[in-house]
Order: sequence, then structure tokens, then C-alpha cells
Amino acid sequence: MQDYINDFERWKAEFEFSIPIKIRFSETDMYGHVNNVSAFIYFEEARIDFLYTIGLHELIQKDGGAVIVADQQCDYHRQMFFYQRIKLFVKVNHIGTTSFNLHYLALNERKQVTLTGRGRMVYVNATSSKPKPLTLQMKELLSAKEKPKTDSLK
Amino acid sequence: MQDYINDFERWKAEFEFSIPIKIRFSETDMYGHVNNVSAFIYFEEARIDFLYTIGLHELIQKDGGAVIVADQQCDYHRQMFFYQRIKLFVKVNHIGTTSFNLHYLALNERKQVTLTGRGRMVYVNATSSKPKPLTLQMKELLSAKEKPKTDSLK
Amino acid sequence: MQDYINDFERWKAEFEFSIPIKIRFSETDMYGHVNNVSAFIYFEEARIDFLYTIGLHELIQKDGGAVIVADQQCDYHRQMFFYQRIKLFVKVNHIGTTSFNLHYLALNERKQVTLTGRGRMVYVNATSSKPKPLTLQMKELLSAKEKPKTDSLK
Amino acid sequence: MQDYINDFERWKAEFEFSIPIKIRFSETDMYGHVNNVSAFIYFEEARIDFLYTIGLHELIQKDGGAVIVADQQCDYHRQMFFYQRIKLFVKVNHIGTTSFNLHYLALNERKQVTLTGRGRMVYVNATSSKPKPLTLQMKELLSAKEKPKTDSLK
Repeated sequence: MQDYINDFERWKAEFEFSIPIKIRFSETDMYGHVNNVSAFIYFEEARIDFLYTIGLHELIQKDGGAVIVADQQCDYHRQMFFYQRIKLFVKVNHIGTTSFNLHYLALNERKQVTLTGRGRMVYVNATSSKPKPLTLQMKELLSAKEKPKTDSLK
Repeated sequence: MQDYINDFERWKAEFEFSIPIKIRFSETDMYGHVNNVSAFIYFEEARIDFLYTIGLHELIQKDGGAVIVADQQCDYHRQMFFYQRIKLFVKVNHIGTTSFNLHYLALNERKQVTLTGRGRMVYVNATSSKPKPLTLQMKELLSAKEKPKTDSLK
Repeated sequence: MQDYINDFERWKAEFEFSIPIKIRFSETDMYGHVNNVSAFIYFEEARIDFLYTIGLHELIQKDGGAVIVADQQCDYHRQMFFYQRIKLFVKVNHIGTTSFNLHYLALNERKQVTLTGRGRMVYVNATSSKPKPLTLQMKELLSAKEKPKTDSLK
Repeated sequence: MQDYINDFERWKAEFEFSIPIKIRFSETDMYGHVNNVSAFIYFEEARIDFLYTIGLHELIQKDGGAVIVADQQCDYHRQMFFYQRIKLFVKVNHIGTTSFNLHYLALNERKQVTLTGRGRMVYVNATSSKPKPLTLQMKELLSAKEKPKTDSLK
């Protein structure tokens, strides 16, 4: 079990937001499946859509800030193939002073887990790249119980 | 024959500058070969190295300019595979008022032609993105008979 | 004007099939816009969706064939940026014995032309990679007046 | 400190094998730096070169096996920029029955740490994708004290 997941079924049930991932042919490799690197392309796409959807991106721009990846990891549970439609879920796991953690879950059409992952995002000054505190409003958006649901696992 | 090449042997003999291309695993696709998109990654790498090596990049930066791709094309003569070491040649083909054309040739280890290509680069103001005239000095660098030879076909 | 386009308005009006392109953050570059290489990622995505939608892919698989890119080119009319939603149109331009040509047109949300392009696809034996003749049925699918319209310019 | 590193100086001193990474322009993003996804492209390039250099790749091919990524993670210590020449170090950290762990370290020209990372590789049957035991000879290659040194930190 991944050390960022305690109870998998509970962990999975907490996801509310997801986007469909359309695998691009150039994201496959000569092993015939989706290349391991592509997982992080998909995490990034889902992450950005999530931050937009909850309204954080707008606050960040007004504040002259930017969100950058401090660390991230991915567990490859099952191979993905071209033409599969993947659903990528994102949720907030932890909110700190200048950073927050996101967790990721990818399912294929049969609802089989293909990827799980996590990453820590740091809030920085867009020009100096120095960490800066998340505002109260940002933290509220990140911790809101009721997230916009573009899709749901339930 | 490609319409940008008249006499292939002469065309080929005119190349002087080349760089080695190291194919990345993620640049292959599920057909088992190098993906067609990757050709343009390699063109870009060779193009930038070429513009640096002849000294154009330095002039451009001092002038507040930038070089952007206006159009480009590639002919796929032979499949490329991971672990092949590709040599990618670049030469100037035409110099206009605000633009110049580059030609490309890729050879595999057996000196077989894998790619040929060409593209038009436009010189623009880095902030406005509007075309601006190449200076005389820039044109001289681009048209110099004696180019730095990092490698040669001969 | 691009030499593969005679009358631009007529050329544009002939497109029927298109897909939405979602630009990925990793497809931008340090110039702040979509990297020139990404155009060919999008051409590929649109091309594959097109060949599936018209039913060609199914025939090809039954026939033990594959379609590979013989040459392609792109004209960059206007920069593209992250968060823009691009519509990429594809149409058949020419059908030969073992190959066919596709033309591409990309529009941004304001219906401004960002990319035009074309490419020649060769039909090959999937194992030998040798060209093989397109069957009559394949040619009919490619030349059908009434194409599936996922979207339209009109 | 990353939980896969106990004593950073000792951890760093144990690396012997490295490759130079040439950053490609298309691997940057609109933030002006190397995109976070690219780190895993570089890990892959270094990993494959390492497995070749120590001779593991040859054994694996004879055995009808393949090495796939089971999980991986990256810590971003410092931004990387185009034109920087990055040195990427790889070492074996742990050898199990059907898998082994690799650790990664990237330094820029000033020998500043830009990335650290790790990943677990699983040895599988190339056709069934099922895990299979590493042979004794494979384990010996992976655990050999004297590794080929293409480069060194000392």
C-alpha cells in the first residue's frame, strides 16, 4: 500500500472532482502502452483544471502569486493504453502555511485503478519565486467541503 | 523528390553543421519507432544549437529580438528507432529581409537518410512579436561560407 | 499563401470534421505560448480521431495494415496560448493508390486561423512496413461526400 | 528532508554513474523554466543508460524480460532552465526478489542540487507483463561495488 493512503476505499470515496483524460498517441511508447512520464502530464492537466474550477487560480493571479510543484509521486497500478478514456480525480489532502498537498486517482473505463499519486504544491511570489503564505480565502477554497463536482465516483 | 531539394547529392554535400541526437524513450510510440512528432523536437534542438554556434543568438538578444517558426515541414524517409544515434544537419538555404530558411537532414549510424526537412524562421521583436529586419551583421553570419563545423558529412 | 491552398475561403469551407484540442501546460514553452512542435501532436490527435470516425481504422485493422506519416507540414498563422480552446479540422484532399493526403485547419475561440497544414499518409503492411494498395472500400470511405460531422464551420 | 534520504552528504557521495542531460526547448514551459514533467523524462534517460552500461539490459533481453516502472517520485529543489547542462546521477538502492529501487540526483553546472528522486522498477515477463524473479547474475550486476563510472561526483 502506498504510504499516502491509509484506507484505500475511504481514500477513494473522498474524491469528488475529476476530468476526462484523452490519451494522445505521442504519449504512448514502444512498449505499446502509455509511457510512465505521461502520468505527470495528466496530473498537471487535472491539477490546473481543479485549481481553476474551485476559483483558486483567480485569487492567485490577483495576488501576484503562482503555484509550483515541490514534489510529486506516482504509483502505476495498471497499464494504460491508447483509446482508453481515463478519468483523473484530484482532491486536497493537506493545507499548510505556504503549501498544500493534492492527491490523484486515475480510473479506466472499467473503473479499474490505473494510477494513484500525490504532490505538494508551494505558493510562491510569481516574480521572486519565494514561498508566500496562502491567504485565508485561498485556504477556505481549498478546504471547502462542497467542491464543484464536474464528475463523481458515486 | 521533395520540392525543396533539386539535386539531392549536391543538397546533401552542402551541409556542414550537425549535432548528435539522442533519442529519448518517451519520444517513441506504440508503433515501436520514433513518433513522427519527435522529428520537430530534433529540428528545434539542431536549429537552436546552430544559431548559437554561428553567433546569431547573441546578436538577436542584444537587439531585443527573437526567432520564431513561421512554417516547417518534414519528409520521413526511413523509420528511426530507440538506441539509434542520429546525426542532424542544418544549413541556411535562403535569407530574406525579416526571415530566413533552414534546411535539415538526419542520418542514422549507417549514414542512411531518415529525415529531410525545411522551415522558415521569422525575426521578430521579442515583446511585440512583430517582424523586424535582420541586421546586416546577422545576414553576414547566416551567409558566411565558412561555418563552424562541429561535424561534417565528408 | 501556402502552396497547398488555392482559394482560402473555399478551402476552409470544405472542412466538416473537427475535434476540440485541449492544450496541455507541458505543451507550452518558455516563450509563453504553445511550442511549435505541439502543432503536430494536435494534427495527430485529429487525424486518428478522423480515421476512426469515418470507419477507416476498422477496415485497416481487419486488413492487417497501418497508416503512417510520409510527410507533413505546418504553417503557423497566429500564436496559441494555454487555456485557449482550439478547434482542429481535418479533411481528405487527395486519394492515391497507396496513400492519401490530409489537410488541417486550427481555429481559436474567436475563429481566427492559428494553424494550417497538410500531410501525406501511406498505407502499409503492419508487419513489413511496405506500402500496400488502399482497398476500394477504404477509398470510398475517404472520398465520401457525406462525412460524419462532429462539428462544423458553418 | 526526503524520506528516502537519511544523510544527504553520504547519500550524494554514493553516486558514481551519471549522464549529461541536454534540455530540449520543448521541455520548458510558459513559466520560463523546465516543466516539472520533464524530470521524469530525464530519470528515464539516465535509468536506461545505467541499465545498459552495467550490462543488465543484455541479460534481460536474453531472459525474455522487461523492466517497468512501478512507482517513482521527484523532489524539485531548484528550478532548471534551458541551456543549463544538467548531470543526472543514478544508483541502485535496494534489490528485492522481483524488483529493485533506483535513486536519482540532478546537479546543474554549479553543482547545485536541482532534483532528487527515486523509483521502484519491477522485472516482468515481456509478453505476460507478470513479475518474474531477478536472476542471481542480474542481482550481482545491480549490487556490484565497482560500477562503470562514466562520470563521478568526486
